[in-house]
Amino acid sequence: MNDDYRERLDFTVALAREAGAYAHAQFLKLETLTVERKGHQDMVTEADRATETLVRAALARRWPEDGIVGEEHARVHGTSGFDWVIDPIDGTANFVSGIPHWCTVIACCKDGVPVVGVIFDPCTGELFRASKGGGAYVGEKPLKVNAATSLSEGSIFAGVSGKSDPKVAATLIAEILGARSLFFRAASGALGLAYVAAGRLLGGVEDRMNSWDCFAALLMLEEAGGRHQGYPPGSLDTGTKVVAGGPGVHDALARIAAKVYG
Amino acid sequence: MNDDYRERLDFTVALAREAGAYAHAQFLKLETLTVERKGHQDMVTEADRATETLVRAALARRWPEDGIVGEEHARVHGTSGFDWVIDPIDGTANFVSGIPHWCTVIACCKDGVPVVGVIFDPCTGELFRASKGGGAYVGEKPLKVNAATSLSEGSIFAGVSGKSDPKVAATLIAEILGARSLFFRAASGALGLAYVAAGRLLGGVEDRMNSWDCFAALLMLEEAGGRHQGYPPGSLDTGTKVVAGGPGVHDALARIAAKVYG
Repeated sequence: MNDDYRERLDFTVALAREAGAYAHAQFLKLETLTVERKGHQDMVTEADRATETLVRAALARRWPEDGIVGEEHARVHGTSGFDWVIDPIDGTANFVSGIPHWCTVIACCKDGVPVVGVIFDPCTGELFRASKGGGAYVGEKPLKVNAATSLSEGSIFAGVSGKSDPKVAATLIAEILGARSLFFRAASGALGLAYVAAGRLLGGVEDRMNSWDCFAALLMLEEAGGRHQGYPPGSLDTGTKVVAGGPGVHDALARIAAKVYG
Repeated sequence: MNDDYRERLDFTVALAREAGAYAHAQFLKLETLTVERKGHQDMVTEADRATETLVRAALARRWPEDGIVGEEHARVHGTSGFDWVIDPIDGTANFVSGIPHWCTVIACCKDGVPVVGVIFDPCTGELFRASKGGGAYVGEKPLKVNAATSLSEGSIFAGVSGKSDPKVAATLIAEILGARSLFFRAASGALGLAYVAAGRLLGGVEDRMNSWDCFAALLMLEEAGGRHQGYPPGSLDTGTKVVAGGPGVHDALARIAAKVYG
């Protein structure tokens, strides 16, 4: 157990629970919220913004020298070498439409690479957490990627959003089905990748994910024995293509991603 | 409020809660279960069978003259004109892999058409219910289909299983994306269609669903103001193609289904 990040991990778990509980209370009285449409999937609710404000305020109080990266507010550059990567509500379209499948994501990066990651699903109560060298857990159960050696043994998180090219996305689905696998798309990228880290799904592929949607889960995947594409320079700010899975299927996933995304 | 089916509805709600709670207890100690593989998605667990036995025993005690249709046990033919259609765990692949998205489904048919339907999601606690002429609810909130008039306004439940033809399924996805919509596939058909009835998804399409996977939700959809394909003769036993959605998008869904499934 590596305790270098214990303090940040404990802080992050508590903050994700607080922020998730706040967002969940809004979710339960969803009818009264003012929904602002921003494209198809990218609907932003007042709850989303208020939750991000809550998270940012807590971070600024406790870690004033750290940077912050998130969807709804401007980038904050820090001086400590640490950056927080936050998505108060991942799966906003679900949140807005009332589907109980969304989560609060908070990760902390050192020199652009995640060292702490927490994903909290308030609708089921599941909390996933990881710290670099310290392992990954859902509740008190260690995460472990699936031991499958063929994509036909389970399902794949297929990252498709309103920003995806329809033809490219359809090709991705065709390739997954062609491998005698099935695709899973429940519209929360962070939860989808957390399920990969937990071995519930075999792997996940998306052409571009924002750091706040994938960094926490990618750290979990590393700690759970999985493989992924790494963190290309600048991906904290620009996002990255994601090819993530257990060691037995990662090469097959990478071949599909190369074929689909070029 | 039509009270003709009140007694059966109340009975069904209580039984779905009991069966769902039983299955959920098994889900939480999933590691200790013996999993029997039956194809890719169609894994059947001991919990599934035990839960179905529980449901069948309760039905036989209370409604001994009714028939029963379900996945795991032989068809029971009744003499009353009523048939129960049960799926103790819909979303078995999720159940087996630990994904908290599955449900217990119990419907009651009269002369082959559903008159009572209950879907219970133990992981979130949501209970959907409907009776013919008596309305449809999630908890105490009335279900209402989405008012969208274009598929681009939301997402579509895309019914794809391990039994689907990969090419046909990929075409379905391409058509949905081509309509500037998004697909939702979280591997529980009954919950997917319940979300359609609740207006969370715009519609749902699948080439063939078993009666125990779709009848409860189709009744909810009717009571929530939606449209679907109807119940072709024999569909209680053989299943049916499903084209379900709000009135503003049903025609567009039907065109997609006709193009994809012929």
